[in-house]
Amino acid sequence: MKILVINCGSSSLKYQLIDMQNEDVLAKGLVERIGIEGSILTQKVNGKKYIIEEPMQDHKKAIQLVLGALVDEKEGVIKDMSEISAVGHRVVHGGEKYAHSVRIDSDVMNALEEFVKLAPLHNPPNIIGINACKELMPETPMVGVFDTAFHQTMPEEAYIYSLPYELYKKHGLRKYGFHGTSHKYVSSVAAEMLGKDINDLKIITCHLGNGASLAAVKDGKCIDTTMGFTPLAGLTMGTRCGVIDPAIVTFLMKEENLSIEEIDNLMNKKSGVLGISGVSSDFRDIETAAKEGNKRAALALKIFKHKVKLYVGAYAAAMNGVDCIVFTAGLGENAIETREEIINGLGFLGTKIDKEKNNVRGEARIISTDDSNVKVMVIPTDEELMIARDTKEIVEK
Amino acid sequence: MKILVINCGSSSLKYQLIDMQNEDVLAKGLVERIGIEGSILTQKVNGKKYIIEEPMQDHKKAIQLVLGALVDEKEGVIKDMSEISAVGHRVVHGGEKYAHSVRIDSDVMNALEEFVKLAPLHNPPNIIGINACKELMPETPMVGVFDTAFHQTMPEEAYIYSLPYELYKKHGLRKYGFHGTSHKYVSSVAAEMLGKDINDLKIITCHLGNGASLAAVKDGKCIDTTMGFTPLAGLTMGTRCGVIDPAIVTFLMKEENLSIEEIDNLMNKKSGVLGISGVSSDFRDIETAAKEGNKRAALALKIFKHKVKLYVGAYAAAMNGVDCIVFTAGLGENAIETREEIINGLGFLGTKIDKEKNNVRGEARIISTDDSNVKVMVIPTDEELMIARDTKEIVEK
Repeated sequence: MKILVINCGSSSLKYQLIDMQNEDVLAKGLVERIGIEGSILTQKVNGKKYIIEEPMQDHKKAIQLVLGALVDEKEGVIKDMSEISAVGHRVVHGGEKYAHSVRIDSDVMNALEEFVKLAPLHNPPNIIGINACKELMPETPMVGVFDTAFHQTMPEEAYIYSLPYELYKKHGLRKYGFHGTSHKYVSSVAAEMLGKDINDLKIITCHLGNGASLAAVKDGKCIDTTMGFTPLAGLTMGTRCGVIDPAIVTFLMKEENLSIEEIDNLMNKKSGVLGISGVSSDFRDIETAAKEGNKRAALALKIFKHKVKLYVGAYAAAMNGVDCIVFTAGLGENAIETREEIINGLGFLGTKIDKEKNNVRGEARIISTDDSNVKVMVIPTDEELMIARDTKEIVEK
Repeated sequence: MKILVINCGSSSLKYQLIDMQNEDVLAKGLVERIGIEGSILTQKVNGKKYIIEEPMQDHKKAIQLVLGALVDEKEGVIKDMSEISAVGHRVVHGGEKYAHSVRIDSDVMNALEEFVKLAPLHNPPNIIGINACKELMPETPMVGVFDTAFHQTMPEEAYIYSLPYELYKKHGLRKYGFHGTSHKYVSSVAAEMLGKDINDLKIITCHLGNGASLAAVKDGKCIDTTMGFTPLAGLTMGTRCGVIDPAIVTFLMKEENLSIEEIDNLMNKKSGVLGISGVSSDFRDIETAAKEGNKRAALALKIFKHKVKLYVGAYAAAMNGVDCIVFTAGLGENAIETREEIINGLGFLGTKIDKEKNNVRGEARIISTDDSNVKVMVIPTDEELMIARDTKEIVEK
């Protein structure tokens, strides 16, 4: 069974074709500048690049070219579109309705439209991508896999805000959490690697990339996570401020005379380690600058690590203990020193890092010492594989 | 040496006259409805009440009556105003300038005026109170004791927000923290009760009242606290929402068509346990309602306890361990079940509650078992005494 995984952004599209027999990635690709001059599709097969530069006025055209690239006689990996058994779509927001992945039908499409209010930037391109695929492959089953789904197991004390309760009922104003596919994936791999039943484990998963979030996963279920109603909340990120005193929002609107759009833009695009350092939103640039003596860059890193530590402590408290801490995503998989400093600051939990084992990038490995009470691990995330697995499970039902 | 402690609100004033020889409270009182019809002064001496109902058009008139009550031939406690050696004023905001209490002179007054921008609701009545006292007792030394001062030892990774750094420089936009006088007082009493040097202790102080905050006190110094730029941040409180996804502020302004003033009012006055429960901002009412089966009241309590637990875990992480957890203020000193549930959820830290010892209200006591790794204590706060002690120290310098 071959499954196509699609992740649509507003002007971009990522895809993978995965053979589920052995979970091999047959092809993966990226389409950029959809609807903008200079559209380009880059497909990789066994490390070999295949590039198509052709105008793509919309996502339908982009997906047409993706399918064309996959069946291309010379550069493709399948003979015919009919070899694609199902399409798994990444969808950002599944509201309170979807605690699991779901086969897409007209009811689901209606629900996704409804959730646009909750994710005005993210759900519309997801919907466009699904519609384009449905037009081009009307007989192929489609599955929606939601960033929010894994977090739907949170208890109400974790997801209800301390605001007038009516606002929750009226607007669905609650904590949803994001990166759920990643947290679900790495927590299940962690249990496998430890040779333990996930139902007996307390795991803290640290998805640290340009967007970053932690989750507390108890007995295989998410019980708390750092992102909130939107992906702005929680940790300091590349350009996002994370949680701050909410009074700051109105203070800045008044003092700096900012509109709603301007303050949202400031908090989402000009804050985080970029805002603190003034250097970059990319942690690698900031590390370089810090090593060269840039104090604000060093401060940005200190703040980031401080907040990760605080949340690990908080989630150990939420679960009354922790067996395992997992680092994943760009920074989590690659930032050796950052991991070491975070873990060294958490000795009270019984964590001991093994400096040699921690000298690893992008590879699944236990990086704590054998006698560390809490196992610390690096696990590369694979949201596409998780989407493909969920899709397979649902179409085989 | 007798010291008068003054705490001025916008239309109220609390005071205590303390004999520093044995730290006895000679008299304490409350003036209400200053500048409003029905002004009333209530003074208590040895449990006996003395009430004055008289128009008080301003704070000067109120303080005149306070001084009159203190020297009153029948109901008073001193013969002459000259017996008052100094006045200690509670001041909410000391900005970044005051990490300690300070003798008030014209430079200090100018600084307090400057901090009105940071504490527009609180500093103005504090300033009015100081000016009124200076007029009535021009020769008596005055000392300012700041709610923010104790938190000035926080490292920058704790107090710098993940916003554009320029905003910190331009507006003083940083975490200040409040309730500092209380956190300082109970942490020092905790060290005394444990018979240990505060410089060797990691203490988490939980000031849980209608306003609520936690502080992480390492080696006698605050290194993090839950309130922020304003007292809105941190925990769920009586009517305040604490930290939320900052994107909610602008979402609600748009969806509910709220002005800056209206959303500030919603977050400060209509949220917290009042907003969740719909019952009351008073935890006693909510406990009663929850026991009678009110689900939203029960939820409000669950959320409050959940957040206290998360912060205790976070601050244990901030200090890489914890020796002692202190409960203080209205709820902290009196809510037996709340304390028990919080501590029971923190067993991973090595805390064990002693149910019998915990059966206490408003009395200093260790409430953990003898073999509990982390000592848990109830310590009644006494901000007035702390202000008096600071005042004595400064005028004796």
